[in-house]
Amino acid sequence: MELSDLDRRGGEWLRGGGQRHDIVLSSRVRLARNLAGFPFAQRAPEDQKAEIVARVKAPLESLPLGTRAFWVDLDKSEKMDARVLVERHLISRELEGGKGARGVYFGSDEVVSVMVNEEDHLRIQAIRASLALEESFEAARAVDEALEGKLPYAVSTRYGYLTACPTNAGTGLRASVMLHLPALVHLKQVDKVFQAASRTGLAVRGFNGEGTPAVGDLYQISNQVTLGKSEAEILASLKDMLPRLLEYEERCRQELATRGRVKLEDKVHRALALLRSARTISSEECMQHLSSVRLGVVLGVLTGLDLLRVSELFVLAQPAHLQKLEGRSLEADERDQRRAAFLRARLA
Amino acid sequence: MELSDLDRRGGEWLRGGGQRHDIVLSSRVRLARNLAGFPFAQRAPEDQKAEIVARVKAPLESLPLGTRAFWVDLDKSEKMDARVLVERHLISRELEGGKGARGVYFGSDEVVSVMVNEEDHLRIQAIRASLALEESFEAARAVDEALEGKLPYAVSTRYGYLTACPTNAGTGLRASVMLHLPALVHLKQVDKVFQAASRTGLAVRGFNGEGTPAVGDLYQISNQVTLGKSEAEILASLKDMLPRLLEYEERCRQELATRGRVKLEDKVHRALALLRSARTISSEECMQHLSSVRLGVVLGVLTGLDLLRVSELFVLAQPAHLQKLEGRSLEADERDQRRAAFLRARLA
Repeated sequence: MELSDLDRRGGEWLRGGGQRHDIVLSSRVRLARNLAGFPFAQRAPEDQKAEIVARVKAPLESLPLGTRAFWVDLDKSEKMDARVLVERHLISRELEGGKGARGVYFGSDEVVSVMVNEEDHLRIQAIRASLALEESFEAARAVDEALEGKLPYAVSTRYGYLTACPTNAGTGLRASVMLHLPALVHLKQVDKVFQAASRTGLAVRGFNGEGTPAVGDLYQISNQVTLGKSEAEILASLKDMLPRLLEYEERCRQELATRGRVKLEDKVHRALALLRSARTISSEECMQHLSSVRLGVVLGVLTGLDLLRVSELFVLAQPAHLQKLEGRSLEADERDQRRAAFLRARLA
Repeated sequence: MELSDLDRRGGEWLRGGGQRHDIVLSSRVRLARNLAGFPFAQRAPEDQKAEIVARVKAPLESLPLGTRAFWVDLDKSEKMDARVLVERHLISRELEGGKGARGVYFGSDEVVSVMVNEEDHLRIQAIRASLALEESFEAARAVDEALEGKLPYAVSTRYGYLTACPTNAGTGLRASVMLHLPALVHLKQVDKVFQAASRTGLAVRGFNGEGTPAVGDLYQISNQVTLGKSEAEILASLKDMLPRLLEYEERCRQELATRGRVKLEDKVHRALALLRSARTISSEECMQHLSSVRLGVVLGVLTGLDLLRVSELFVLAQPAHLQKLEGRSLEADERDQRRAAFLRARLA
């Protein structure tokens, strides 16, 4: 496995510049698929899991994923490499912490990745920068169609695609957007908004997925229902909710930028100064300041800073990335020092 | 009154560079004196207070206090001007808040000042940079002797100089040093040290005198007893205690500079970055960061910063100084913004 060119830059989904990139960091679609004739991954004995991997590898490797693609055997990879993949959102914590034959296949631009033997035999994921749910869905569907021609999917005429957990059955589709909501958080409006979102069948998660805290004011919003609706309806349910949410964040930003101008500038300039001067900094503090700096760049409080260079630090300043860069594992306090040095160099 | 040349620089006592200026900010001596034939100031009717002022003004104005000297009538001065004098440690809060005829006379280098009708008719003060108790005592004594030739002091052959409060009788001498003790504070040793100091008859006060909190890790240590000891013995009691205290602070600084190096550098660089970037900052936060920056300069963590320019900010960034500089009174939040702008300019 050769990840050495990955740990110095963020994936395509962090590059920003697209639609509503002021608030929407990325748009992600994943499709859950299983092979007919095998038990679900968690119930499959090891030899069958290995057989599944063997069965899907050739079809995966024939996918047109750009100039270069990687297959990573998670049961053979270094712990640190697996962690880097989690931090880059290429694999889930579940796949990282799983057992037996399993892996991931992804293109070097990191738009498409396919996890094998996570909860389902196949988890096809496409993630793009900014608001681009259609594009992500198209990318995932193209992979799905290519694989469907070569692999016997488990499908029921009544339920649609069968999945290990019934909450994923039907379309197997989960669509999500990663939102940067610093103003809603700052003005303490975020809980109210998320309560409204969950009433419309949407789920809210932190930056690193289910069960993780919301660091850096980053939130994933996704659909909860996969069954009984078409793919288009599922995408629509997410897309229909977004304008109101974006408008709410925007209104709060405007309030900060006008009535709260001094406090906003203070927070933003202090955050950048701390990132540029700390000699030791925790991951949490780093994410919090990065959030303020990102807001400052978007609102024009900070000039001369590239939004991409700020956003990709959300990924690159994480523990496994720092250790990968250092070429060895680091104790927590060494890591905090290494992070501070990395941030100073990146934001100089 | 013309204070416009004062509000842009600190007094001589902030200029540093002398003995043990790494820890000792300044050395101060004051002598309490009263005129025979008058009630003590707090009991004197207004006409007598005015008479006292009239009586002492000519002797004061004949003192050789350098190229320029100021007499400020506190009962006629602007509130802001009085506050500036308090912040510069030229007068006490008691004199500022008093009533009736009262004032202060001081030289433009601010080494010597004489308060009239504070608790006593005369409070002669001399304050010098760094560890210079003898020099301050000599300066105060020279003024005292010059005045004693022209004014009838209230003296008892048994008790020595008589004072409004018996705790000042005898020599009327209070000697103090202003110490910068960031390492003792950081390592939570400061209470222990001060308990020991008070057992040896010394009093501990904050930066702005009796009853004020210790801001910026600055502490005034002074003698409590004025009676039954000679001036030399009083100065000795303070001077004898100092080496141990300075050594303790020094040992704590060494510990921070070696075993706690990363944390020290982190704290110092963050403090400077915040002072250079904040858009609004309270007086307390400012003092705290100035303390860290001063420690950083003394220990060589920060280079290219002049110690004087840092130390004088302890005085210049205070509320009345900022308002004087602005030429008008400011609300608290305006003041915090003005302070931030002032610090950015000064530390650029």
